[in-house]
Formats: sequence, structure tokens, C-alpha cells
Amino acid sequence: MSNQPDQQHENLQTLQRHIQFLLKRQHLVDDLAKRQETPKQRQIGQLVQQQNLTKLQQSLAELHAADIAYILENLPLDDRLIIWQLVQSKEKDGEILLEVSDAVRESLLEAMDSAEIKAAAISLDMDELADLAPDLPQDVLNDVFSTLDPEELAQVHAAMSYPENTVGALMNFDMVTVRNDVDVRVVLRYLRRFDALPEHTDKIFVVDRDNQLLGQLTLETLLINQPDTPVADIMMKDEICFKPDDDADMAARAFERYDLFSAPVMDHDKRVIGRLTVVDIVDYVREEDERDILSQAGLREEEDIFASVWRSVKNRWGWLAINMCTAIFASRVIGAFEHTIAQLVALATLMPIVAGMGGNSGNQTITMIVRAIAMGKVKASAVYRLLRKEVEVALINGVFWGSLLGLMTWWLYGSTALGLVMVTAMILNLLLAATAGVLIPMLRMRFGKDPALGSSVLITALTDSGGFFIFLGLATLFLV
Amino acid sequence: MSNQPDQQHENLQTLQRHIQFLLKRQHLVDDLAKRQETPKQRQIGQLVQQQNLTKLQQSLAELHAADIAYILENLPLDDRLIIWQLVQSKEKDGEILLEVSDAVRESLLEAMDSAEIKAAAISLDMDELADLAPDLPQDVLNDVFSTLDPEELAQVHAAMSYPENTVGALMNFDMVTVRNDVDVRVVLRYLRRFDALPEHTDKIFVVDRDNQLLGQLTLETLLINQPDTPVADIMMKDEICFKPDDDADMAARAFERYDLFSAPVMDHDKRVIGRLTVVDIVDYVREEDERDILSQAGLREEEDIFASVWRSVKNRWGWLAINMCTAIFASRVIGAFEHTIAQLVALATLMPIVAGMGGNSGNQTITMIVRAIAMGKVKASAVYRLLRKEVEVALINGVFWGSLLGLMTWWLYGSTALGLVMVTAMILNLLLAATAGVLIPMLRMRFGKDPALGSSVLITALTDSGGFFIFLGLATLFLV
Repeated sequence: MSNQPDQQHENLQTLQRHIQFLLKRQHLVDDLAKRQETPKQRQIGQLVQQQNLTKLQQSLAELHAADIAYILENLPLDDRLIIWQLVQSKEKDGEILLEVSDAVRESLLEAMDSAEIKAAAISLDMDELADLAPDLPQDVLNDVFSTLDPEELAQVHAAMSYPENTVGALMNFDMVTVRNDVDVRVVLRYLRRFDALPEHTDKIFVVDRDNQLLGQLTLETLLINQPDTPVADIMMKDEICFKPDDDADMAARAFERYDLFSAPVMDHDKRVIGRLTVVDIVDYVREEDERDILSQAGLREEEDIFASVWRSVKNRWGWLAINMCTAIFASRVIGAFEHTIAQLVALATLMPIVAGMGGNSGNQTITMIVRAIAMGKVKASAVYRLLRKEVEVALINGVFWGSLLGLMTWWLYGSTALGLVMVTAMILNLLLAATAGVLIPMLRMRFGKDPALGSSVLITALTDSGGFFIFLGLATLFLV
Repeated sequence: MSNQPDQQHENLQTLQRHIQFLLKRQHLVDDLAKRQETPKQRQIGQLVQQQNLTKLQQSLAELHAADIAYILENLPLDDRLIIWQLVQSKEKDGEILLEVSDAVRESLLEAMDSAEIKAAAISLDMDELADLAPDLPQDVLNDVFSTLDPEELAQVHAAMSYPENTVGALMNFDMVTVRNDVDVRVVLRYLRRFDALPEHTDKIFVVDRDNQLLGQLTLETLLINQPDTPVADIMMKDEICFKPDDDADMAARAFERYDLFSAPVMDHDKRVIGRLTVVDIVDYVREEDERDILSQAGLREEEDIFASVWRSVKNRWGWLAINMCTAIFASRVIGAFEHTIAQLVALATLMPIVAGMGGNSGNQTITMIVRAIAMGKVKASAVYRLLRKEVEVALINGVFWGSLLGLMTWWLYGSTALGLVMVTAMILNLLLAATAGVLIPMLRMRFGKDPALGSSVLITALTDSGGFFIFLGLATLFLV
């Protein structure tokens, strides 16, 4: 037993190097093959090539689907497609497609024909198929659906019908249910008939004859209790369960708060229809956090770092466009004061400091509020208290940093009045940053919008334009 | 069975409202009590108060430790301490202290005396005690340690000795091991002797007589196999296991990639010393992502949103100080061109656009690279390919957005030369942003530093100063 992940990681990396070596050799062979003159030479070239591919294929066949996905994500597009042709196996294809990122999945699907895509889709569980479905061509999808039995079809349609951020979209349909009027011995005998329980089963669900949920039985309970114990005596009642239209964020918090491994999902008649596991939650939380981090930096989605230049341009242009609009607006604010700047050029030199400090301070406030809202720690009614606190923090920071900068200004330009304008502008811009940093996300929450989306761009735009306006406006009033 | 989290959430919120109502009444009663003249009146006031507290205490006693933690985090400091006095119970105190955020924990610990802290600490498991230990006063800690038996003490010291980001710091010591030379019946009989298995047990570990790990047995395997099956036949070999000094990020990726519920941790002699569960991993991943998001915005740590103004100022001043230094540097760059600006004030108006677009674009690049490194998707050798791609993206964006802005400049100021300077400066600054966005995190990775830390501040500083320098420099060369 020496299957340590660090070692495994090393193995993966060795394999990757090996693949890259083979691919390199193959590129050379391809180049050679093109330059071969006689059919005989060409044939030899192809043979060498063939041998490489066989070697590669053997190494890949032993890997977990997630590991193959990892390798595929780390290869440039042309090499990725060579490897993808080699790994294609009916059992693993679907899993691999689910594991890779959206951008990489698209590149892989483009290289598959309809029959291959269909074979991959059919190998999946119904909840997995529902996840993959939006990326599949419609005709292939219809073809796949025609192979399903009515219950399966209903499950796929159900799973696809729930919005992305709900429990219904995350749940799976594989679970074990037992009736409440049996004892442990019967349950044990029933379970022994399985070749394997559904993946990640830590508990089974106890239902009545209408399939309505009565309780939950951990596998542990079955093991530590005597065979003649009635199920009804040892099942846990009043445990957490979900409805399919519950918010996924809320479910994630419940999993975290109560340290759950899995939980049942029931419809409005309390019939068990599915199951949510911590594995689904981990994936969901990771994706959500990823999206937050990326959108904060102005990226629309995770990029395949080997994607074409064109795809990257498309992923980034949206936020750049917004940024350009806000920058032009800020620039026009400055433009309105050009006559002031012409009289005192030092203003142009100093104004980015006021804007920059405001932006940084505003981002601190808004990030803190947005995270607190996301964690469910803030209610709408807290707005006044939060506002008061942030304004106090901004006042302290404004007076402190403003005074430092005022002193610097006085020292550099020898003008007390300019120094005082600097102090005042800093204080006012930090107050603006604090107020907007609290109000923007709180108002968006009240109106049911996502408080995180574009919060950083918005607050920076405000503190830039606001900072320029305050600083240059004060200068116009008191200096020229 | 109607214990739905949304309803539960509602219950929690109702309870919270109830608490706030009672607290309010209590504040009134306190105020009244102070103003009472006669001893009789004072006594009645106290009785009313007493009744409130009893009601509150009853509601709180039924809650899960995590729910109490949630309520405490949502209360302003003075109300929080009133509630904290009410909930204090030997069994839950320790759990609650572990659940709340660092800042809130500190406020709670300040309100406890040594005996209370000791009682809370003693109720914890050894791995939990190790987590709490750094926040406890040294004399209380010594006192607690003196109550432990040698094995427990060794476990706490072991857990405390591992650095924060290692498997050793996350693992727990509660697990079930069985010998390899028995059959399922013996294991079942052994398990039935437990009142409960350790929390979150999905598998037990098979060891030889030296406690060296031979394999793993899921509870499921025990349930679906016949009682006379030898353990050695059905245990899983070559499953993932960890060493205590393994990197926690790597472990988290392994849990995600292979969808693990739990995994054993063994020392260098392959003896099982602990266990890692997905619950620990979920907490770890959440904290890490949280830290990334907060540090990107210039916050040192998660803030208790009801913390004192002073604590918030301390949490934020570090990044503000750095930001001030970079802003002053950028300002000095502009200062060097004051004679140019004096001749053409439009430059002051336009320069923030060049800096701002560069900053946005650079942040996109650096965030994408930093995330790819964090996910283990980028190797040092990929630097040239990434650089080439990002430079191409920057070139396209530079030409496109630069031309737009150049046209706008020409339209606003009627100067072709100024328009051309704008286009050129945009292209050059975006190229600078792309180059730095790739090189900064890649070089930091090569030298073993955290690529994420302060990446946003660094790139913005560079594109600000660089943008001003390029734009004003070009203007000085070609326009005046």
C-alpha cells in the first residue's frame, strides 16, 4: 500500500513527461513522414508512429477518469486531441467529459462524431447525463433519450428542469430505501443482494409504503445494532433533508454547518426522490468560489489556459468594455477641470493618489460585506449599524492617511492650502467609498440581485470619478 | 420529518428575532432597574429580567453547536456576551468556540474565566484541542494538558507540531482498525461492541500486528459480503493514503479528484496514525478560498462585522499602507512630466484611462495564471507558451481598445498626433500588463513563494506607473 497522492502526483507528472516525449517524437515522425519519398519509407514512418501510440494507450488505460481529465487539461490543443483519440473508451469517456472544465470539454466534443458522443452519454448516470446534456448536439441528445426507459427519462428531465443553483440540479437518483416495518436482519439480507451500493452511500432512507420519508439509517447503525432490532427503533428522525428547489448555497451551508456526508431530497408530498452527497457539494462550492474569484478580476469564466487566443479575447472583452466606459467617465470628470489643472499642474500629479486610496478602501469594505452576505451573516436590517461602523473606520483612515499625504504634499509643493485640500479630499473620498461599499451590496441584496457581481468594478469606478471630482472640485473652490 | 434547512433557517431567524426582542426588553429592564428607587421596585425589575433569561436559555439549549455559533456571530458584541453567558454548558462550549470565526472566538474567550475555558477545552477531541490551543492562555493550556493521559498528550503535541497547511494539522485521531487475519463475522462482532463509531466513519482500516496499513474496508463492503468472507479478500488495497507532512492543498485536490469521504494517514513506517475526512477538507478549502478572496481585496483576515472599529482599522491598514506607497510612486512618475502636462493639459485627463485599462487587463491575466497554478495546472516550463499567448491577446486588445480610445481622443481634442500617442500607449501598457501578469506569478512559483499573495496590488502598481510613464513619455517625445 504505497499509493500516496504526492507519489501519485509524481507518477502523473512522469506520465505527462512521457506523453510529451512521445508526442514530440510523433511530431518529428509526422514531419518525417511528410517528407518521405518512397512508399516504403512512408510505411516505416507510420510503423514507428503506431508503436508510440500503442505505448501511450497502455499507460492511459490504467488511469482514473479524473487523472485523464487532468492530463487533457494540461496539454495544448493539438496534443490534447491526439491523447483524446487514444483514451476513448466507452466506459470512461462520459466521466472524463464531466471532469474537465467547460472550455476543455468543448474542445473535446468538437473532435468527436455523433456515435462517439452518444456512446459516452449512454454510459452515464441520469444526474450526470443531465449535467452534460446542455453541451451536447440536439440530435445526439434526442438519440440518447430514445434509449432510456420512462423512469430514467423522467429523472433526466427532472434534473434538467431545475435551475443551476438549486438542490435539484446537484442531486443524484442513486439511493437505497427500506421500509420502516422490518428489522436490521432483513435490511442486512436485502443489502447483501447488492453487488455494490450506490457510490458514496453512508446511509439509507427509511420510507413508508407511499415512499414517504420517515427516517434515515446510517450504515454504522446497521453494524453496531443487534440483528433483531426493529428499524423504526434505531432510525434517525428529524434529520436534515432538502427539497429540489432549495437554494444550493443554503444546502452547501447546511452541509458545512452540520458536517453532513449525504442527505435525502424529497418532493412536496415528502416522497424521497433523490440524494445529495458532500461530493456534489464540494464540487459546487469550488465552482462558486472560483467564479467569485474570477469575476472579481473581470474574467467571465475559467479559461482553458491553452485555449486559442481568440477564445481568451472573447472571455475578457466584456469587463474590459465596462472598464473602458467607467474610465472614460472618470476622464470626462477630469476634463471638466482642465482649466484648474492648467493653472496648477501639481493637481494632475496628486489626483491618482486620492482615487487609488479610495478604490482600495472601498474594495475592502465591499468585499467584506459581500462575503458576509454570502455566508448568510448579514440581514437587511443591519445596514445602519454596518454603515455607521464603516464610516467610523473610513474617518479614522481618512484623517490618518490623509494627514500623511497632506504633509507630503506640503513638503513637495510648499503650499499649505494644497496640503489641506489633499487631507479633505482623502477624508471625503474614503467616506464615499465606505458608504457605497455598504450600500451597493446591501441594496442589491434587498432587490434580490447577486451582491458580488461586478462589485469591485463598480466601487472602483465610483471612487475614481468621485475622487477626481472631490479633489479637483475642492482645488477649484479654494486654490485658483 | 420536516426538518428542512430552509425551514430550519427560518426557525433560526425567528429565534434570532426572538432573542433580539428579549435582549431589547432586557436592555429596557436594565435601564428601568437603574432608575428604580425602592428596593421593592428593583426586585421586581430583576425578576422580570430573570424570566427573560430563563426563556432564552431554554431556546438555546436545544440548538446544535454550529447554530449557536451562527447566532453568536450575528450579534453585536454586548448582546453576544449576554447570550454566551446563557449557553455556556460544558459539552457545547468547546464545539462552539471551534465553530466561530477567529475574531468572534477572541471576543468570547475574553469573557470567560480560566475555569470555564479549561472545562470547554477538556470536552474536545485531541485534534480539536490542538486547533483551539493557540488561542488559549498558556496557564490554562498547561492545566488542561496535565489532565491528559500520555497517549492523548502525544496526539495533541503531534497535531500541534505540523504546520498549518499540512495533512497533519487537519487529521483526527478517531478511527477503527481491524487485523487482516479475521473474517467479516469477527469484524461485525467487534463493531457491535461500540456504542457509536467515530464521527464520519465510512471505512475502517486493516492493519497487521505492527499497526502497518494493509488495506481499507468500507462499511458497505461489510454489509454486502457474507459473514464468513476473510477480511483480506475484500479489503481494498492501493487506495489513496496520506502522510502527515503532505501538503493540505494536494490532499484537497486528491479528495476532489477521487471523490473521497475519508482516507488514512500513516507515518513513515506505514503505521496508521490518523484519518482525514471530507468534512475537514471542506472546512479547509472554504478557508483557503476565503483567504484568497479577502487578500485580493486587501483584507488581512475575515472580519467579525460587529467587531470594534479599531480592530477593523488594524485589519486594513497594512494593504492601505502598501497602496499608498505604490500610489505615491505612480504620482512621482507623473511629477516627472509636469512640464509636459503644463503644455498639454489633455494629457492629465487621458492618462487615467491608459493606466486603468492596463490594470484591468493585467488583473485578468494574473488571476488566470494564479488560479491555474493553484489548481496544479501549470508547470514552470509552460512559461514561454503562456507568455506568447498572453502577449497575443494583449496585442489584439491593445489594437482594438487602443484604436477606439485613439478615435475618441482625436474626436475630443482634434489632434491626430495625440490620438496616435493614445493608441501606442494603450498597446504598450497592455503588453506590459500581459508580460508582468505571466512572469510575476510564474517566477514566484519557481522561487517557492505563494503566487497569489498581493498579486493584484503588484500588477496594478506596475500598470499604473508604467501606464503613466509610457503615455506621458510618448507625449513628451512626440507632442511637445
